[in-house]
Amino acid sequence: MASTFKPEQARVPPALQLPSPPITKFKIGLCQLSVTADKERNIIHARAAIEEAAEKGAKLVVLPEIWNSPYSNDSFPIYAEDIDAGPDASPSTAMLSEAARLLKITIVGGSIPERSGDKLYNTCCVFDADGKLNAKHRKIHLFDIDIPGKITFKESQTLTAGETPTVVDTEVGRIGIGICYDIRFQELAMLYAARGAHLICYPGAFNMTTGPLHWELLQRARAVDNQLYVATCAPARDVGGGYVAWGHSTLIGPFGEVLATTEHDEAIIISEIDYSQIDLRRTNLPLEKQRRGDLYQLVDVQRSSSQ
Amino acid sequence: MASTFKPEQARVPPALQLPSPPITKFKIGLCQLSVTADKERNIIHARAAIEEAAEKGAKLVVLPEIWNSPYSNDSFPIYAEDIDAGPDASPSTAMLSEAARLLKITIVGGSIPERSGDKLYNTCCVFDADGKLNAKHRKIHLFDIDIPGKITFKESQTLTAGETPTVVDTEVGRIGIGICYDIRFQELAMLYAARGAHLICYPGAFNMTTGPLHWELLQRARAVDNQLYVATCAPARDVGGGYVAWGHSTLIGPFGEVLATTEHDEAIIISEIDYSQIDLRRTNLPLEKQRRGDLYQLVDVQRSSSQ
Repeated sequence: MASTFKPEQARVPPALQLPSPPITKFKIGLCQLSVTADKERNIIHARAAIEEAAEKGAKLVVLPEIWNSPYSNDSFPIYAEDIDAGPDASPSTAMLSEAARLLKITIVGGSIPERSGDKLYNTCCVFDADGKLNAKHRKIHLFDIDIPGKITFKESQTLTAGETPTVVDTEVGRIGIGICYDIRFQELAMLYAARGAHLICYPGAFNMTTGPLHWELLQRARAVDNQLYVATCAPARDVGGGYVAWGHSTLIGPFGEVLATTEHDEAIIISEIDYSQIDLRRTNLPLEKQRRGDLYQLVDVQRSSSQ
Repeated sequence: MASTFKPEQARVPPALQLPSPPITKFKIGLCQLSVTADKERNIIHARAAIEEAAEKGAKLVVLPEIWNSPYSNDSFPIYAEDIDAGPDASPSTAMLSEAARLLKITIVGGSIPERSGDKLYNTCCVFDADGKLNAKHRKIHLFDIDIPGKITFKESQTLTAGETPTVVDTEVGRIGIGICYDIRFQELAMLYAARGAHLICYPGAFNMTTGPLHWELLQRARAVDNQLYVATCAPARDVGGGYVAWGHSTLIGPFGEVLATTEHDEAIIISEIDYSQIDLRRTNLPLEKQRRGDLYQLVDVQRSSSQ
């Protein structure tokens, strides 16, 4: 049957096998942080939360989208840091690097506004347990939506979209990164799964309209369709802020099950990830072997052209 | 921005515009039927339900997966009908054709076991309001799963998988058809959306394990990711039967919202579809224009090769 239906051709290039990371069962910490207009306070506050998560056993800590700055087009240029220019030019990521090194943990550092030349990005940095910057994901799909009377936002007024998907090998597995609105594009998650990701981390700040409607739904869908873990991390809700975030940071297992979640207040979620569950679910439902490459194919354009 | 990111290339061939069907706002009826081992009774019973739905104003009626036979590999060969051999060889579809013609409604006729030569299929017939067979969808992804101690089933022991996706133009819109396990493959729904579908109908019979976990989740995900309507129709639950169905037939709107649903008993759900909601949601969240054809592409293999 497999040969007739060409399941291996349903992903172009063919899907990669799951790698075997050094650690396959570990605790993850999701830091749902309050964010203020005081950047220095935000950095100190985030560091304390990372330390608390590490104390509680987390080997991987995830921060929210835009955790060092208010979420607004007015703020992005003011709070932006030049990450590539080194620690003095980027106190936010310097803190993440130092925390990762001292605590010997992997950090998916939410996102901050990044300045690079004359452009601004919404950027997630991933730090290894030795403090090294392992990867930088610039939000690929900018948040430009218009639901009149509910929520209108145009990130593209100030930000530039990233140019590449980001999958990174860490001590705690192969991790795909998406930022907030990236989660709406199922293709990105499919592409990460085909690149062998165990886990997709989406720092995100859904709002009071799309949050209750879609936040958990999209996370569970990405997990169950791709049979991998999904972790999200949002800022805590600030009802006095200009952009009111939904909160509800969550960890989803590869069967689409909510493993841990929270409401909208500040919280540090500690939960366990066990990658053997991925193999189990892919044995229960062998979707990868049942796909119809004779009928549909998802092309990973950059991976295709690099081969 | 559009030109740089090549959103139109995210679907190959490019996505079609939504067509303008004769009717854009109408009532749909989902007949969650009890199914017994008595085929003649099942046909009479289904006909009565279709008539009731039409009386209540439904212009489109959907039946469950395998509504004329028990759902089992033992039953499929016994209850199978040769649909292409005409009404005498297929009393189940003859009834659907007559009901559609007399009631002047479109019927998505759930599915029945179909015999064609020496092969058996799980097949959905779509009848136009003049009683003409408009399309026949043979389940593309056979239900072969193994969750030890919970649910193990191998349709491929008796059935052959269909060879083509099915999108059909009807009086009540362009409708994509999937049968049950087909819903797990997000690619099929993406492909239907790119072919201009307003609505995907999934006759289905999820079970007591995957039903509570995934049935509503998958429907809502297909709807919100592709910004179209999704309708499902399941058999009523028979706790004494060999295969215990989850029930919960449902209509989902293009924002992923549950518009109508039911529990597991017999029911006829009548709910309204309004295709202007599709345009509204695609204006609110212009996903199609925001996709990154420079990074990923979904290829519709048959549509590509026919061009």
